[in-house]
Amino acid sequence: MSVTLAIGAGGKETEEFVERFILPLFKLKSLGGVGLEEMEDGATIPIGDGKHVVISVDNYTVNPPFFPGGNIGKLAATGSLNDVAVMGAEPKAMFDAIAVEEGFPLKDLKEIIKSMADVLNSMNVALLGGDTKVMPKGSLDKITIATVGIGIAEEPLLTLDRAEPGDKILVTGPVGDHGATILALQFGIKVETLKSDVRPVWPAVKALREALGPDLKSAKDPTRGGLAMALNELAERSKTTVFLDESKVPLRPQVKEYAEMLGVEPFALASEGQAIFVVKGGREEEALEVLRKAGFEEAAIIGEVRKGRPGYVISKTPVGGLRILEKPIGELVPRIC
Amino acid sequence: MSVTLAIGAGGKETEEFVERFILPLFKLKSLGGVGLEEMEDGATIPIGDGKHVVISVDNYTVNPPFFPGGNIGKLAATGSLNDVAVMGAEPKAMFDAIAVEEGFPLKDLKEIIKSMADVLNSMNVALLGGDTKVMPKGSLDKITIATVGIGIAEEPLLTLDRAEPGDKILVTGPVGDHGATILALQFGIKVETLKSDVRPVWPAVKALREALGPDLKSAKDPTRGGLAMALNELAERSKTTVFLDESKVPLRPQVKEYAEMLGVEPFALASEGQAIFVVKGGREEEALEVLRKAGFEEAAIIGEVRKGRPGYVISKTPVGGLRILEKPIGELVPRIC
Repeated sequence: MSVTLAIGAGGKETEEFVERFILPLFKLKSLGGVGLEEMEDGATIPIGDGKHVVISVDNYTVNPPFFPGGNIGKLAATGSLNDVAVMGAEPKAMFDAIAVEEGFPLKDLKEIIKSMADVLNSMNVALLGGDTKVMPKGSLDKITIATVGIGIAEEPLLTLDRAEPGDKILVTGPVGDHGATILALQFGIKVETLKSDVRPVWPAVKALREALGPDLKSAKDPTRGGLAMALNELAERSKTTVFLDESKVPLRPQVKEYAEMLGVEPFALASEGQAIFVVKGGREEEALEVLRKAGFEEAAIIGEVRKGRPGYVISKTPVGGLRILEKPIGELVPRIC
Repeated sequence: MSVTLAIGAGGKETEEFVERFILPLFKLKSLGGVGLEEMEDGATIPIGDGKHVVISVDNYTVNPPFFPGGNIGKLAATGSLNDVAVMGAEPKAMFDAIAVEEGFPLKDLKEIIKSMADVLNSMNVALLGGDTKVMPKGSLDKITIATVGIGIAEEPLLTLDRAEPGDKILVTGPVGDHGATILALQFGIKVETLKSDVRPVWPAVKALREALGPDLKSAKDPTRGGLAMALNELAERSKTTVFLDESKVPLRPQVKEYAEMLGVEPFALASEGQAIFVVKGGREEEALEVLRKAGFEEAAIIGEVRKGRPGYVISKTPVGGLRILEKPIGELVPRIC
């Protein structure tokens, strides 16, 4: 038995790997806040007065490291800060741990670090520390960057278990741009009219929190495993049925086209600059307006939380049929993020 | 210009890289606690009442991943928790981010994760989250693990700038065992009587803190760059001269022998289970006794902090001559930790 790509794909096999090989081994899995077992985007350490330090860690291995819309540095910084933001925390600090291959062009490394800095500087986030390891030529293909995002949140945290029947689901914009871009590049398809959507989602979280208060229930960024994985996690954690109206999901024609050409589910393609939000039913139009005003002009209401078989995502196709939208299985795109 | 192994070696070139290519780019480098510019083992976020959340991040790339005395899992968990401990913080939580090559034996991955769990379970540290990425065959040589250690510390933090002339320097035990072991393995030398010293140093920090209070000034684990780098950082950060008595430094004959055979400075070899401590002059014998009682039986008093040219380490050789112990230059052993 050996390690397969699917274990790292962020879908069903990743979950099974964590449940079988990680969760049973560790005695302590929380410090009283959100911990390992919740499998949220980040974990939290309560520090009193209803405040939490929110921490999220991810290792970015995207290949190629430079792509339309950004590079691995922009992605690594944005990704971990987004994971913190969707817990309801204002991003405050970051750490990075770079592994780079001996012989990697120094100017490329500088550009990557510059892109990380641009993200942090634009959001007033501090870089508190880092680590750079150089691996001998041939032992690493180019570069990987692990980043740690740190934020401070006040309760309620925007965890998925807060969603209830009657709540509505919104997305900030078109899904799958990042995944389709990297997929196309890896298949040698020239990408001209499409680019990664990588961008911070904190402005969306902030605007909604301020406008809706506790009626903003949950948030999640649909990265590895895409919208399909994010909605399945929402259904599981909130023990509800999630209903998705596919005709309402913003999806660029190019993304649809690439997905069809390559035989993949477009809703399983990663976004790196979108978030999905669950808001109390009745406040969805207001939430939409707030998102648009905050610069997320392509935001849309895409579904709702329903009573029913817990843990299922029922998806209405554009022609009106119903299907179960499953968790992605296998590895669509290795090194997508 | 391309990336060299020396940039990741933790010595002079690493410092220059950070000073030239990282520090100038990031606007915010602290949240009011210890930040990026201090270049300590970890950074801190003040949370009021003189308390700090202490965080440290490192990416472990050691090759081979299994070695006498441990494996990359034990090393990655111990390493980041040690970095937190030497700031004066009790380790409380960890995150991990694994990158592993497709086809890596699953049983080896399980053993590595089991070793991480053993370290955490023995120290009552929670695993709060993690990330596993699988890289296609040929794009990563085996496995790397980035870990985030998190602890809570009360002031005073054990930062290097607290050292003053008159203070004494102790080490918990023989230095260089980890570095010599990995070095020998990488050179194809059979390692029979030597093993990595990888172990948690928190018990030593805890015992000294309880016994000495604020008279325990500073602590540091001499990992990449070894004792030579650690003492140079101490001298620089405290703006003092550090005096080392080489005849007092515990050093196994095998480590000395390997170092001579391979032409490297033994004091530049990494330890992964030792700490150096600075204590107020006059309390060093008591500190030594405390360390021995806490299980660090080979601890020793190895030097002192003096007035003089700031930033220099003056080292008395076993035959009585004086030399300047420089920061390590170049890369002794790639993928040593």
